[in-house]
Amino acid sequence: MITEKIGNRIRELRNQTGLSQEKFAQKIGMDRTYFASVELGKRNISIVNLEKIAVGLEISLSELFENI
Amino acid sequence: MITEKIGNRIRELRNQTGLSQEKFAQKIGMDRTYFASVELGKRNISIVNLEKIAVGLEISLSELFENI
Repeated sequence: MITEKIGNRIRELRNQTGLSQEKFAQKIGMDRTYFASVELGKRNISIVNLEKIAVGLEISLSELFENI
Repeated sequence: MITEKIGNRIRELRNQTGLSQEKFAQKIGMDRTYFASVELGKRNISIVNLEKIAVGLEISLSELFENI
């Protein structure tokens, strides 16, 4: 499922930043439990929240979707 | 705003297919008025619906977000 694919991709990229879920969620102003559920593929995340995550990862949305 | 950027990008790509909003929405099983509002940047569209649109355009999500 696409929600799982993007969740795994976000986790992989967030791990590369060296930040914990909590620190990353804090950095982008997102609720930690919501962010955790996104990484688990349990949320049909919106474009506005995807953009927040891409900004936090310092990559483009196109890069966020690479290999998906 | 990101919703407007993606709406414009979708419109540009959908126009390249030669399909009207109505025909394209029909092709991907999306409500025509909802799809029209996405192109106008009025919807915080979700990943599941973005994937439907990318499939209908026969491109990857990464390509959908190019130049955004």
